[in-house]
Amino acid sequence: MAETMPRSVQRLMEALARLPGIGPKTASRLTYHLLRSPEQEAEELGQAMLALHRETGECPVCFNIMQAGLPMCNLCSDPARSDRLLCVVEDALDVLAIERTGAFTGRYHVLQGAISPVEGVGPEDLKIEELAKRLSAAEFEEVVVATNPTLEGEATAMYLKRRLQELPVRVTRLARGLPSGGDLEYADAHTLARALEGRAEL
Amino acid sequence: MAETMPRSVQRLMEALARLPGIGPKTASRLTYHLLRSPEQEAEELGQAMLALHRETGECPVCFNIMQAGLPMCNLCSDPARSDRLLCVVEDALDVLAIERTGAFTGRYHVLQGAISPVEGVGPEDLKIEELAKRLSAAEFEEVVVATNPTLEGEATAMYLKRRLQELPVRVTRLARGLPSGGDLEYADAHTLARALEGRAEL
Repeated sequence: MAETMPRSVQRLMEALARLPGIGPKTASRLTYHLLRSPEQEAEELGQAMLALHRETGECPVCFNIMQAGLPMCNLCSDPARSDRLLCVVEDALDVLAIERTGAFTGRYHVLQGAISPVEGVGPEDLKIEELAKRLSAAEFEEVVVATNPTLEGEATAMYLKRRLQELPVRVTRLARGLPSGGDLEYADAHTLARALEGRAEL
Repeated sequence: MAETMPRSVQRLMEALARLPGIGPKTASRLTYHLLRSPEQEAEELGQAMLALHRETGECPVCFNIMQAGLPMCNLCSDPARSDRLLCVVEDALDVLAIERTGAFTGRYHVLQGAISPVEGVGPEDLKIEELAKRLSAAEFEEVVVATNPTLEGEATAMYLKRRLQELPVRVTRLARGLPSGGDLEYADAHTLARALEGRAEL
């Protein structure tokens, strides 16, 4: 096989196949797509890949990803956002997801992971002390814990609840229940149980 | 949205989302994966993208993709392969697929597409005259037409049959029938009809 394709083609296929969710077949399909496309397409992707780490940094306030060279990220420096409301998420992609809803106008705090004994991730590996310090220093009234509805996310939420209880701040969490557009009949028992538990006045 | 993430992150997301089969969600998942991974991973991908066109060319014999700077591709120059058998495929990825089977040891000819009136691709847009010239000049005994089992692939195969009939060469095509591991019950009527048509002695 090795000799049936040029080294540079094989190299790109292998690099692409290392990405999560991209198998060898998709990797070769993408590589041959780029080979058939104008050189600029591969060029632009290549340059964007090379610039990725060089031009980004970690926001020292919320630990989100930010443009390199700035004192803090755009979400932390935006004067239009509320300094009373803080949303705690596991990672930077979750910030994007919440921003997409347009339903949150406070600040963020990115934990950079979730507690997972299996993977050996403890509270000290996350930005939890930084969160506590940040809450002590500022005037947040409410912290919305928006960790994932998974075992690790739940464990992290529980830990945060205990860790933050002495602080004069309300700690809330995202509602659990039936997803919009979902069908009750197809909801798993756990989701349905949480929807019952969390039932509210009509 | 624009300001929630650094420009370089957005740039990579947009470039990735332009790839076939990669939507905006996958693009952002891949981008954040690379951000979390060591810089070398994005670096290696970036360099591989930049090298892709620079280090490849088109084989002047079979029109497959080859290492730049060589007189012909490795498949054309391999002395161990048979010069009596030629396999005609639509594109370079098909060469890979056939090589993976290990069941073919002849040479290849890449048409670089298939006849498609809908997309305005005629025989003159493919490497068909080059194929005829190649067959006249060499000693091939059999040409295996391995175009896709699609409308375009069929049309191309039919055209090739007519175009090559005056040449002293046997023109064959890949068998059509039930795929291995498939279930007769789930085979579509067309596939099943072709399997009946092509039935052979047990």
